[in-house]
Amino acid sequence: MAKTKRLLTLFLRFLAIGATIAAVIVMVTSHESTEVFNLTFTAKYSNDPAFKYFVVAEAIACGYSLILLFTCSQTSLGRLVLILDVVIAMLLTSSVSAALAIAHVGKKGNTHAGWLPICGQVPKFCDHVTGALVAGFAAAIIYLILIFCPLYSAQNPLYL
Amino acid sequence: MAKTKRLLTLFLRFLAIGATIAAVIVMVTSHESTEVFNLTFTAKYSNDPAFKYFVVAEAIACGYSLILLFTCSQTSLGRLVLILDVVIAMLLTSSVSAALAIAHVGKKGNTHAGWLPICGQVPKFCDHVTGALVAGFAAAIIYLILIFCPLYSAQNPLYL
Repeated sequence: MAKTKRLLTLFLRFLAIGATIAAVIVMVTSHESTEVFNLTFTAKYSNDPAFKYFVVAEAIACGYSLILLFTCSQTSLGRLVLILDVVIAMLLTSSVSAALAIAHVGKKGNTHAGWLPICGQVPKFCDHVTGALVAGFAAAIIYLILIFCPLYSAQNPLYL
Repeated sequence: MAKTKRLLTLFLRFLAIGATIAAVIVMVTSHESTEVFNLTFTAKYSNDPAFKYFVVAEAIACGYSLILLFTCSQTSLGRLVLILDVVIAMLLTSSVSAALAIAHVGKKGNTHAGWLPICGQVPKFCDHVTGALVAGFAAAIIYLILIFCPLYSAQNPLYL
């Protein structure tokens, strides 16, 4: 039973690494140029702080999972790993939400604020951002499962 | 010792309720009208989905804390409360991040996307949003403390 749990955790950590690496690569490679009124306009992730934050957060989560895989037995540092998992899950949730908010303005615009949508001009850029957001969201869900598994299955109750 | 912990938890829950109520009220009352090129332009929180999501998330967190205060002894449902605290903390982090991303565009704009800042035209609206974000951020931090306290202080180790 303990071995199955450890294998499941290992599998989820590998999935999380895959999802975060995919999110970083897809977001970083998202640039597209277009001409608007004879002016060349290049859309890239580094044009917006929320997208930059997304890349940094996904990279941190990926690095954390990699370090965890290669350095420590998870049973020996159970509680510390759980606390760090919560921090990483928050970081991922926060970065996906911020990037999603900006991506929504990019897709739909905001007529009240006079912000026009840009996805009509740079559809490939928007597709990349959408892909990166899906991967980032998947990573956040995997971290949620990684947090909830030990909380549910721990033999001893937690006292508040 | 157990009584002190329970009192501290109670105090933090009251603080969280205060912070989330403040965030909701300050955000909901954030509307300002201004005239741009003879057109009346009204800035209000409901103009943007991220701000609406912020209000809903803060209200849910507030309701959850209120229900918890009046319905159950926290020691009897320790683990369930901890899991729900993690969910609420994620919800708060996510909503603050999304609203902050939009508020940043409102304040600084994004020249690459052609989105102009609006805070010069509606400074009071922006002040309200900033206040609501500060309160929302405080609520998220309080929830983080509420999660980390039992994880640190639990007498029994958690097994992964």
